[in-house]
Amino acid sequence: MPQLQRRAQSSAESVFARMSRLAAQYGAVNLGQGFPSDTPPAFLLEAARRSIGTLDQYSPPAGLPSLREAIGADLGVDGADIVVTSGATEALNVLALSLYGPNEGSLPDQVLMLEPVFDVYVPQARLAGAEPVTVPMNLDAAGWSLDMAALRSAVTERTRAILLNSPFNPTGTVFSRSELQEIVALARSNDLWLISDEVYDELYFGERPTSLRELAPERTFTVGSAGKRLEATGWRVGWIACPTGLASQIAGIRQQGSFCTPVPLQAAVAAALPIARAEGFYERLRAEYGERKNMLVGGLRELGAGVYEPSGTYFLTAQHPAWQAETLVQTHGVAVIPGQAFYAFHAPPAGLLRFAFCKSRAEIERALGQLATSQTTDSHEVV
Amino acid sequence: MPQLQRRAQSSAESVFARMSRLAAQYGAVNLGQGFPSDTPPAFLLEAARRSIGTLDQYSPPAGLPSLREAIGADLGVDGADIVVTSGATEALNVLALSLYGPNEGSLPDQVLMLEPVFDVYVPQARLAGAEPVTVPMNLDAAGWSLDMAALRSAVTERTRAILLNSPFNPTGTVFSRSELQEIVALARSNDLWLISDEVYDELYFGERPTSLRELAPERTFTVGSAGKRLEATGWRVGWIACPTGLASQIAGIRQQGSFCTPVPLQAAVAAALPIARAEGFYERLRAEYGERKNMLVGGLRELGAGVYEPSGTYFLTAQHPAWQAETLVQTHGVAVIPGQAFYAFHAPPAGLLRFAFCKSRAEIERALGQLATSQTTDSHEVV
Repeated sequence: MPQLQRRAQSSAESVFARMSRLAAQYGAVNLGQGFPSDTPPAFLLEAARRSIGTLDQYSPPAGLPSLREAIGADLGVDGADIVVTSGATEALNVLALSLYGPNEGSLPDQVLMLEPVFDVYVPQARLAGAEPVTVPMNLDAAGWSLDMAALRSAVTERTRAILLNSPFNPTGTVFSRSELQEIVALARSNDLWLISDEVYDELYFGERPTSLRELAPERTFTVGSAGKRLEATGWRVGWIACPTGLASQIAGIRQQGSFCTPVPLQAAVAAALPIARAEGFYERLRAEYGERKNMLVGGLRELGAGVYEPSGTYFLTAQHPAWQAETLVQTHGVAVIPGQAFYAFHAPPAGLLRFAFCKSRAEIERALGQLATSQTTDSHEVV
Repeated sequence: MPQLQRRAQSSAESVFARMSRLAAQYGAVNLGQGFPSDTPPAFLLEAARRSIGTLDQYSPPAGLPSLREAIGADLGVDGADIVVTSGATEALNVLALSLYGPNEGSLPDQVLMLEPVFDVYVPQARLAGAEPVTVPMNLDAAGWSLDMAALRSAVTERTRAILLNSPFNPTGTVFSRSELQEIVALARSNDLWLISDEVYDELYFGERPTSLRELAPERTFTVGSAGKRLEATGWRVGWIACPTGLASQIAGIRQQGSFCTPVPLQAAVAAALPIARAEGFYERLRAEYGERKNMLVGGLRELGAGVYEPSGTYFLTAQHPAWQAETLVQTHGVAVIPGQAFYAFHAPPAGLLRFAFCKSRAEIERALGQLATSQTTDSHEVV
């Protein structure tokens, strides 16, 4: 029998899918994979039910015109600069293919990213034929911070792009305007693209995050997600806001992936985005998730965990000497993501775990209760 | 400003999207892009409306277990060998990445395909870093036929796979069992994978097509599409039936593309596939499209066109000395696809056009009427 291509021989189930599978297997509370326990808002569901049976055939690969307009209006950019994708994962893959790759007869392009790194960034860069290079974030008692000097010195003649995520999964970091300005200056002086993964743009707990595009519209591709904003992660409606004039070439690459995004769901998101904005949906979401974050931060600290409180996303990172993700799911019925899932090149901080708090209050309470029990009865098993 | 990666610099809108755009612009009858005018069946729409609001979060990248089971049951394979994709376009892209690619320090893998060639095959092979090689189909007064000797002599030491489409878009060819047996022998003696794009598996007008997997289950990846079968091309639910034991690695590549297929639509297709089979939906579809095919074949022949009658798909190819796709849409209000859209390496037969008959009888009649008018009034303009 022939062999699979080398990149497929080593491909495997993601840790997110695996932890969800284990959570189901052991009946565990799933604070692992980042999908909400809440139902998406009724205005989204009703719009989808109306679209089913009326908009069932192909849209243009760049997206339904009504959705491109709605996203553009929400972000304050021209709808013509929007490319709709089948989730943010596809958006990131399309940008990897469009912005960097191999170079015949010489070394491949490099793309800079921060570590911890969201799990698709590294394999997508490799599928595109480029070389991913990571710069580790600092972690100390005060929490996570950007090592700007290390980022600066990682730029080489082969660097084509910097890929950022703010609010940052898994650290919860929101980069400050002055940090982003330094990154923009670095990109401008080295002629780099900027990819800004802002899928958690509406999920923050302090000041509204600065969108990188505001500072460098000429070179920033912004990635967004209706699934994250509207609590429908399984709908796979994402987007890219492109620098002016590039959307048609990006859509040309995009059409080789999944041709177009499911059209009734595109139409539903087009209807829902202005309603979400007008009705204060995101404010309510932030208020509710802020409460759940506080529950989880407080509860974990009471159990002796070191918790790095997030400024955005619906995740937090924590460390506890007695907890390991691989055993917690089985011995204590709590699924979380191990820190090493976010480390491709550098060693993760010892015992780092990611907890999701996009789960119901009841689930968070149950998880904390089960972790508390484990303190006395099971600590020897899990260390 | 930096440059886009080379593959994105030359990317462009597909001719299918472009002809649909022109059809809308000129108010033309759209016999171009292959999407049905009919509404999808009520049993599919109702299942989707029920799933919306209940299955809104991620599924595993390989697909909802219920859908993998339903596809497996329909095809007669194990559900564990199915990988669900965001349409057949993504299925083909995942297979390109998984089965062939570049070879460090030596020449890239080759993949053999037939020409006319569906428009994504060639760019997807290139995105995967492989070299697409095409073998032209024969065309004479009797119609299209496979040049088996040419296919055989196109195999080299670098060939990794043969990519076939049967029923074949745009020719309408259904390969015979004996032709497929010869292809299987060629693949076995040269250790090749077989990719069998069978998205039109239920759209045939004679004997039921042989599925390549029946003849070579150990090396055949079968690509299918709920959108084609159930008249919902915009839903983007496709699949790959893999040789036993390979689905998890294929799903590992698939998750880098769009992570998973929209989950409420997966659930709807899972419910609809057994109903479609039990209620004779495909038989009714074939009967109806058979009538429309006859209308279009007869009408075009009356207008003096040479028509190659299809054995499957909802397309036919034809030639007429006075018709060109680029002008027909504007001058006669009929959008069709120019033959060169299906030719990447060889010259297309002069004046070849593809007509879709998945359109309503009223649209087919209107198109024929407008083409008839053009015979007398506009023939000088369009030649």
